[in-house]
Amino acid sequence: MPAYATNMRLKFPILALILEIITIILFAVFVDYDDGKGHGHDSHSNSSETHHEEKPMDLYPMFQDVHVMIFIGFGFLMTFLKRYGFSSVGINLLLAAFGLQWGLLMQGVWHLVDGKIKINIFKIINADFSTATVLISFGAVLGKTSPVQLLIMTILEITIFSINEHLVATVLEANDVGASMIIHAYGAYFGLAVARVLYRPGLRNGHENEGSVYHSDLFAMIGTVFLWMFWPSFNSAIADPGLTQLTAVINTYLSLAACVLSAYAISSLVEHKGKLDMVHIQNATLAGGVAVGTCADMNIGPFGAMLIGLVAGIISTLGFKFLSPILASSVGIQDTCGVHNLHGMPGILGGLAGPSHSSQILYILTYTHQGDPVMQAAALASSLGFALVGGAVTGFIMKLPFWGQPPDQNCYDDSLYWEVPEEEDENEESLAHADHSKNKAEV
Amino acid sequence: MPAYATNMRLKFPILALILEIITIILFAVFVDYDDGKGHGHDSHSNSSETHHEEKPMDLYPMFQDVHVMIFIGFGFLMTFLKRYGFSSVGINLLLAAFGLQWGLLMQGVWHLVDGKIKINIFKIINADFSTATVLISFGAVLGKTSPVQLLIMTILEITIFSINEHLVATVLEANDVGASMIIHAYGAYFGLAVARVLYRPGLRNGHENEGSVYHSDLFAMIGTVFLWMFWPSFNSAIADPGLTQLTAVINTYLSLAACVLSAYAISSLVEHKGKLDMVHIQNATLAGGVAVGTCADMNIGPFGAMLIGLVAGIISTLGFKFLSPILASSVGIQDTCGVHNLHGMPGILGGLAGPSHSSQILYILTYTHQGDPVMQAAALASSLGFALVGGAVTGFIMKLPFWGQPPDQNCYDDSLYWEVPEEEDENEESLAHADHSKNKAEV
Amino acid sequence: MPAYATNMRLKFPILALILEIITIILFAVFVDYDDGKGHGHDSHSNSSETHHEEKPMDLYPMFQDVHVMIFIGFGFLMTFLKRYGFSSVGINLLLAAFGLQWGLLMQGVWHLVDGKIKINIFKIINADFSTATVLISFGAVLGKTSPVQLLIMTILEITIFSINEHLVATVLEANDVGASMIIHAYGAYFGLAVARVLYRPGLRNGHENEGSVYHSDLFAMIGTVFLWMFWPSFNSAIADPGLTQLTAVINTYLSLAACVLSAYAISSLVEHKGKLDMVHIQNATLAGGVAVGTCADMNIGPFGAMLIGLVAGIISTLGFKFLSPILASSVGIQDTCGVHNLHGMPGILGGLAGPSHSSQILYILTYTHQGDPVMQAAALASSLGFALVGGAVTGFIMKLPFWGQPPDQNCYDDSLYWEVPEEEDENEESLAHADHSKNKAEV
Repeated sequence: MPAYATNMRLKFPILALILEIITIILFAVFVDYDDGKGHGHDSHSNSSETHHEEKPMDLYPMFQDVHVMIFIGFGFLMTFLKRYGFSSVGINLLLAAFGLQWGLLMQGVWHLVDGKIKINIFKIINADFSTATVLISFGAVLGKTSPVQLLIMTILEITIFSINEHLVATVLEANDVGASMIIHAYGAYFGLAVARVLYRPGLRNGHENEGSVYHSDLFAMIGTVFLWMFWPSFNSAIADPGLTQLTAVINTYLSLAACVLSAYAISSLVEHKGKLDMVHIQNATLAGGVAVGTCADMNIGPFGAMLIGLVAGIISTLGFKFLSPILASSVGIQDTCGVHNLHGMPGILGGLAGPSHSSQILYILTYTHQGDPVMQAAALASSLGFALVGGAVTGFIMKLPFWGQPPDQNCYDDSLYWEVPEEEDENEESLAHADHSKNKAEV
Repeated sequence: MPAYATNMRLKFPILALILEIITIILFAVFVDYDDGKGHGHDSHSNSSETHHEEKPMDLYPMFQDVHVMIFIGFGFLMTFLKRYGFSSVGINLLLAAFGLQWGLLMQGVWHLVDGKIKINIFKIINADFSTATVLISFGAVLGKTSPVQLLIMTILEITIFSINEHLVATVLEANDVGASMIIHAYGAYFGLAVARVLYRPGLRNGHENEGSVYHSDLFAMIGTVFLWMFWPSFNSAIADPGLTQLTAVINTYLSLAACVLSAYAISSLVEHKGKLDMVHIQNATLAGGVAVGTCADMNIGPFGAMLIGLVAGIISTLGFKFLSPILASSVGIQDTCGVHNLHGMPGILGGLAGPSHSSQILYILTYTHQGDPVMQAAALASSLGFALVGGAVTGFIMKLPFWGQPPDQNCYDDSLYWEVPEEEDENEESLAHADHSKNKAEV
Repeated sequence: MPAYATNMRLKFPILALILEIITIILFAVFVDYDDGKGHGHDSHSNSSETHHEEKPMDLYPMFQDVHVMIFIGFGFLMTFLKRYGFSSVGINLLLAAFGLQWGLLMQGVWHLVDGKIKINIFKIINADFSTATVLISFGAVLGKTSPVQLLIMTILEITIFSINEHLVATVLEANDVGASMIIHAYGAYFGLAVARVLYRPGLRNGHENEGSVYHSDLFAMIGTVFLWMFWPSFNSAIADPGLTQLTAVINTYLSLAACVLSAYAISSLVEHKGKLDMVHIQNATLAGGVAVGTCADMNIGPFGAMLIGLVAGIISTLGFKFLSPILASSVGIQDTCGVHNLHGMPGILGGLAGPSHSSQILYILTYTHQGDPVMQAAALASSLGFALVGGAVTGFIMKLPFWGQPPDQNCYDDSLYWEVPEEEDENEESLAHADHSKNKAEV
């Protein structure tokens, strides 16, 4: 199998170090601290164009909440696989750590001040946001890609994201405070396009490692709950200070609460004997945060937020149960974490639930008054277009045979790229002589 | 066993969806965003009656700390059981997500402004607080109740809580800033009353699943440590801003620190060979936060807070060791998590250590100057009365035979209400052919 | 083996209770709440000598971030050992809970106001900092010491730390805002000196329990990621408010991001087949936070911070791979957690990368303008001197034969000091009759 040069010894360290050194050089040339003079015009949402922090550290607690979502939330959410926890939380850290540096550059070039990108808390929140797109796409290809492939995806996805973000916020002047469209839908469909290009017929009938064990599901719940708790910060961090920010917090808080009830209800309804399924609980409970994103800072009414959450939880759970198997079998999209159900469909729902009068779904929209529906629709189309085309191109680049992609039989297995401790359960050893097996590692 | 209709397929989804839809309708009629005009009169503590947030988001970091306690803290604290982690963290999420919506309504009806409940950060902190009572009671009946029973308990317990809270804060005008009485003692005795009604003679000699494994005890420590760290936020979140809030933080911080030392010391003293017991460490280290609650914002002196913590750690640990077995064997109260030791007795200690001059235990009380001791005593009595009567009534309703209560042999076992992954340890399979057993799930 | 009186039944409870009661008495005499009048002159960094909080609670979110690092971060980082998780997170809680009380006293005596130590948020942040030194040293001796020995180490290490801190901040007037020297280097070399004195020839060839299992490595990543995320708060918490604090946040954020890339690259470069090693990822990714500490609040340029992080990640990973084995075999320092690589060398790098014009490594230093290089060098020398001498003396005291030190064969094993649950995997039992073995506990 010459196509599977999975030894990372040279290619990964060289790529990682070169990327970091190039980034440092670019920072030396282009980046400086924000001295508080002349900033405030960098955002992906025109509602924030007029954003001014009153003090340099005012947004810092919000930033830390978002930071926890990126590194603990996304990282642990993906640890549900029985033998892929090291990669989930470890590669998540790698991609986000590089992505936030790259995002600072890519987002910053649109807003130079005296030829410099001036870093402040607002900028590093947005940098964290840009990495979220990559981490969402990572979920779609989880277990089937090498660290080298994923670093390449990080560069390309964040670069394209920054173009779309600039287009949506500055040219179309659309509202997307919680980024349903430009982060969630974009990240999901980008990842799904990559997954389509990287389709593996050999995994059509599943893989023995593509499942959870009891404790891996509990680790994943750490990610779920931190994402769930801090999502109000995600959707409000770059909102206008004061009552608008409060509105974004309350709408997100309520949408997520309602979403929990509908996700649990539908999970029980569709599963054997009315049991709850951990995949639904870990993911669909969060769909309310995604779906309320675009209109989080609007006056949709507390009950409107709850309705959005209720619908999102239903759609997301049904997607996991019925749509994902179809996507895998008929469309050739093997979506490991089901990002289509958590970020894709709820992200589109969010885009539609935003100030689009053409939407027939939610009567709440009569309450909204912000945003030109044509521009909102254009923003959604732009995000999906950049995602699908960008993801497909990225997928073809990632498919080149020298990036160390794992062979089918080693998918969903940390031991290809990580030193995995051997289990030393002496009881088992005394029984079975342990047959020196990596299989024990998941215990 | 016709009494055990544990299939949730219809009853759980229908109940969950109906509750959520009713709640949304009530929100549509009664709830609106706080526009900053005319609020500030909603609290369970008269010291907060005059509370005014200076900016809408000032309390948001405090809220997030409390949020983490509710969803990570309580959720993971209960994962100590070897086969009940999904339910602990998952049903905790369900009950709290519904409870905070219900709590917003029940607490809000006492403080309508223009016929509306106006939501702000202060209100959602209090809504989180209201769910804490349910999560404490959940600990008392953990492993022995169905999701349907627990949703019913949530509605009733929060409704009764809101009545008692209003009585204590508005009528009696008692102090309970950290809610030793109205949350901790109330939640504990409510749960104990439910547990008494639901007494299971078949579990008199224990149950094979009523214990921990090594990693489940570590998951539980995630809950313990987050509760321990953020308890100063719990006790100070609704205190008067400024120095009063600072006092509440410092008293709670010091009480908890002292409590750790006494809990460890007593655990070692009473256990075989001076070893530490994880049950004590996971729970009794938190008793200082409960016990200092009522007087957290008073000038009890830093050393006074530490004395309260020292005593609480001792009482709580001794309770786990000596009192819980007696309660189970002689009084018929099978208190799974020992909430009597963590919330019950320390909550009463807190009520007494508040501004009650009749207390003989703590000489520090000469320092206090707030609160009428008669009213404080009445507040404690009211909280215990509502808890015991409300819990008993709730217990009888929960005992009705069609809520899907688990049979004795399936207690403390996630697999009754959850899809639990089968362990796929191939080593074992090759040896034993895995006898298709759910027993492997806890590894 | 009369030297190994590991039964803690009397000595541990008596020591813990006596220490706590003495501490409470000292608090009753010396400690009071800060009433906001006349404070602000307590810090280990002269840049903070002029620090004034505008409101009593302004620093509270920063404090909570540091609190999470101390209790979750350090606690879970050390859970990587397969059978030592209870001790890692549990004894971490014990030492930190006592240490913060002792630190308040020891740091406070240098800054009495009217004969009193006035507690505020700034003081409790510093108290948390003082415990960090102990938790770092704990890492060096992890698995080889009793709780009694560690309580003794806590008292002595914090006492000596407070003297050195006062010397560095007030006498030498050196800059060390992020405490590279006075916390990280001090804590590491103190612990290494203790480890040297407690050298165990019997562990020269390793120990069967000195390793991880799959899930223990994941628990450790909880610690790693929380430390990584909140390190900007650690390095900026006591910086001057406003732009200086922002600079400290940004420098730390960027240094850590760059450090991740170099740690991953070097780990892959030096490991078999280019695989990543969890020990490196858990630890070396944090070295950037340590190394940027001293100069975090200086104008070193964003790219300067990234260079420091890049170098720190390289040095730290190489230290784990090549230096630690040499220290163990040739110098007699068995450094369980590799604190020399995470805190020792990066701490010295931080001290040198501070405003020391004599440093030849980093050309960025031309940008710095703060701090007298002679005094900075003296501060580093002082920190190392106090650490090595203090650690050696402490080590000899800890080596006295009646503190319950574990025998070699019981090292790295919770079951000596904790009640450890027996595994009840019925599958295995039915196969092997489970030979009632504590060995199963790590599954």
